[in-house]
Amino acid sequence: MQTKYLLSENQIPTHWYNVIPDLPGPMSPVLHPGTRKPVTPADLLPLFPMGLIEQEMSPERWVKIPDEVREIYRIWRPSPLFRAHRLEKALGTPARIYYKYEGVSPAGSHKPNTAVPQAYYNKIGGTKRIASETGAGQWGSSIALACKMFGLECTVYMVKVSFEQKPYRKSMMQLWGAEVIASPSPRTNAGRGILARDPESQGSLGIAISEAVEDAATRDDTRYALGSVLNHVCMHQTVIGLEAKEQMKLAGDVPDVVIGCHGGGSNFAGIAFPFVADKATGSKVRLVAAEPSSCPTLTKGVYAFDYGDTAQMAPISHMYTLGHDFMPPGIHAGGLRYHGASPLVSQLVNAGVIEARAVGQLAVFEAAVTFARTEAIIPAPESSHAIRVAIDEALQAKEEGKEKVILFNLSGHGHVDMAAYDAYFSGKLEDFEYPAEKVKESLAHLPQVDFAK
Amino acid sequence: MQTKYLLSENQIPTHWYNVIPDLPGPMSPVLHPGTRKPVTPADLLPLFPMGLIEQEMSPERWVKIPDEVREIYRIWRPSPLFRAHRLEKALGTPARIYYKYEGVSPAGSHKPNTAVPQAYYNKIGGTKRIASETGAGQWGSSIALACKMFGLECTVYMVKVSFEQKPYRKSMMQLWGAEVIASPSPRTNAGRGILARDPESQGSLGIAISEAVEDAATRDDTRYALGSVLNHVCMHQTVIGLEAKEQMKLAGDVPDVVIGCHGGGSNFAGIAFPFVADKATGSKVRLVAAEPSSCPTLTKGVYAFDYGDTAQMAPISHMYTLGHDFMPPGIHAGGLRYHGASPLVSQLVNAGVIEARAVGQLAVFEAAVTFARTEAIIPAPESSHAIRVAIDEALQAKEEGKEKVILFNLSGHGHVDMAAYDAYFSGKLEDFEYPAEKVKESLAHLPQVDFAK
Repeated sequence: MQTKYLLSENQIPTHWYNVIPDLPGPMSPVLHPGTRKPVTPADLLPLFPMGLIEQEMSPERWVKIPDEVREIYRIWRPSPLFRAHRLEKALGTPARIYYKYEGVSPAGSHKPNTAVPQAYYNKIGGTKRIASETGAGQWGSSIALACKMFGLECTVYMVKVSFEQKPYRKSMMQLWGAEVIASPSPRTNAGRGILARDPESQGSLGIAISEAVEDAATRDDTRYALGSVLNHVCMHQTVIGLEAKEQMKLAGDVPDVVIGCHGGGSNFAGIAFPFVADKATGSKVRLVAAEPSSCPTLTKGVYAFDYGDTAQMAPISHMYTLGHDFMPPGIHAGGLRYHGASPLVSQLVNAGVIEARAVGQLAVFEAAVTFARTEAIIPAPESSHAIRVAIDEALQAKEEGKEKVILFNLSGHGHVDMAAYDAYFSGKLEDFEYPAEKVKESLAHLPQVDFAK
Repeated sequence: MQTKYLLSENQIPTHWYNVIPDLPGPMSPVLHPGTRKPVTPADLLPLFPMGLIEQEMSPERWVKIPDEVREIYRIWRPSPLFRAHRLEKALGTPARIYYKYEGVSPAGSHKPNTAVPQAYYNKIGGTKRIASETGAGQWGSSIALACKMFGLECTVYMVKVSFEQKPYRKSMMQLWGAEVIASPSPRTNAGRGILARDPESQGSLGIAISEAVEDAATRDDTRYALGSVLNHVCMHQTVIGLEAKEQMKLAGDVPDVVIGCHGGGSNFAGIAFPFVADKATGSKVRLVAAEPSSCPTLTKGVYAFDYGDTAQMAPISHMYTLGHDFMPPGIHAGGLRYHGASPLVSQLVNAGVIEARAVGQLAVFEAAVTFARTEAIIPAPESSHAIRVAIDEALQAKEEGKEKVILFNLSGHGHVDMAAYDAYFSGKLEDFEYPAEKVKESLAHLPQVDFAK
């Protein structure tokens, strides 16, 4: 019985899977933040190169991966799929647990899967410089790396609390040649506005997005890049699930449940979307998004039109949201602190194709420790949300005395997040349930949209 | 042309390679620190289980790897071999550069290759608890992991300067269930002695070894484990070179020069020893050990009998040494700060089979940055010494207009060492050549050994 299932370089997928043609209904349009009318490709050109705009709206189920992108993917792809023999044994479960491990990338997470094609399409689209934002730094380090690979300049607005608490990922960005700026910053109107109201602001992903979007929109040589949420980002990540499907065949198993953690939606989409098509043709596989109970977008938010950012500069999307001025508490899974969700994931949750589950951070770290002490790999706090749900599913199988095949996405390693483990071991972490009245408050500020379906 | 060369799980070596029968002459004996007579297996039993003592003295060229050890190796082995296409292009060299990447282990370095079998032989030898020491933490985190895999308790004495400056690796040890103690500590006679003389002592690997050896020697349930230097440690690491040889065959190339960084000798031995046998049968391959100019054991030390530790409790070995009371400066490649060297590597250097080269840390970090910006992977500061020498070899090939095949060991990733990169970028690092008179001073304290060859 094998521990891991490997594919060769020539088995890196040749095409990304685009879930749009397999959606249960038509997509809602994305609205211009000023006019509140559906955006056109021309509206998006100041922010994105045409290659990515086309992908954002593509009706094609399969989109070719350029050779130049596969060339960089080869550094770490195909990533391994593991059978969690030791974890199963420790849990005493009849379930068979598999995990796809994306921590083998040079940045230590799944984020380079989309950073690389984004840099590539910008390069061929004439972009000289990319402005982006980052929370905990997984995305920022990945876009920095991708820009270096294609010879682009890169500026990253990093949420201030992470800039100060997570200096290691800042250093990774600098090593890969990027400029890193603590957000909110005096560099942009959006940042200056926030600082004027609250000079001590610790920042949020929504604010950092506003800064990066403004930077890109106001400079001719610069375009913007987003590490999650958007359709093309979710599509790029499907290399994860496509490889995992091939590897599950090698293992001779078919998953009953597929789990990914959920922040903006990209790593979840990466593992889960390739199974959505199977559901359309009769598969009973369950797809479960695991989110933090402190930022419960899918489980406590509403499915509505909302801005992608705090300063209302980004397009308005139809998505699950806690409100664009939602300020999440400073939990240690920094990558899961976004007020919104991918419109594609949102539509599939709303249609009942995808389930969502919120988990508390103490239970998440308990799962992470169990995992590290059995499977050896130290998981990122974000990925540990998926581990928590996978363990819960395995324990349920044990209780019911049923076989079950579980597949989850271990989206990154935790070597750069040891301070979070320190905080957990020293008893400094606590659970935080977002109070319902707070959600109600931020939801009162949703934009009025008179778009008729 | 491929980027990486992979082997399948069933190609994990079945046997370790033991260089002892291929040495150019008989080994010098190891001497008891008290009697200064050759140690017997019985002398070593308080410190090591019999399985490892036998390996330390084995005349067999091939030693079987137990199934239980290969089972754990499968988590990350076989490790990938990369062709450094992008680095070659950036250097404009006709050389073909390959690197074996050991950073894929759960601890991020090559150290688990020996930690796992050491824990295994202790487990079957009845040991309940292991005491060990660590400098920067690569070894400590690896022995903590291995102990957890086999259900042993683990205490790690960590050099104080690293305990304070490198909290992330301390947290990794704790996550894997180990107790971590800053050394020098009040827990041992050795530690109390140092603290009495210098309460502000920042510690050294020699001191930490004294503490761990004392801990193990004074407790019946506890044995000692060392992460480098010893014969069995070097042998366990040969899985690196054995796999690399198979992968070089897949690549259709034969190395002209094989490079590893050198602290105690284990990762260098791992990549280089499997090529020593080839040299005995006519191969012209050069084997180059890259050490820091601030701790120039092989290039500025003497080949003599010396203690393995500061407190003169560890056995006396015939090795290159800077003197057992040598205190290296606080360079950022913490894993390369040992006063001595593996007796096996030392004998081969002395016989001219292995070359040694010292490199300054500024040149090392410059090489690391070049590597990260071309090959994407962030190298550990230790491993970057090998990169420096590999780049120098490639540039020499360019100058001479010659083809050359270079293989080096990228022994670990640098995600946990970003503070060192920070220091480099902010101009806080400087080169440090160890002054000749200082070496002379510490060499004045070598033990008098009347052992006649």
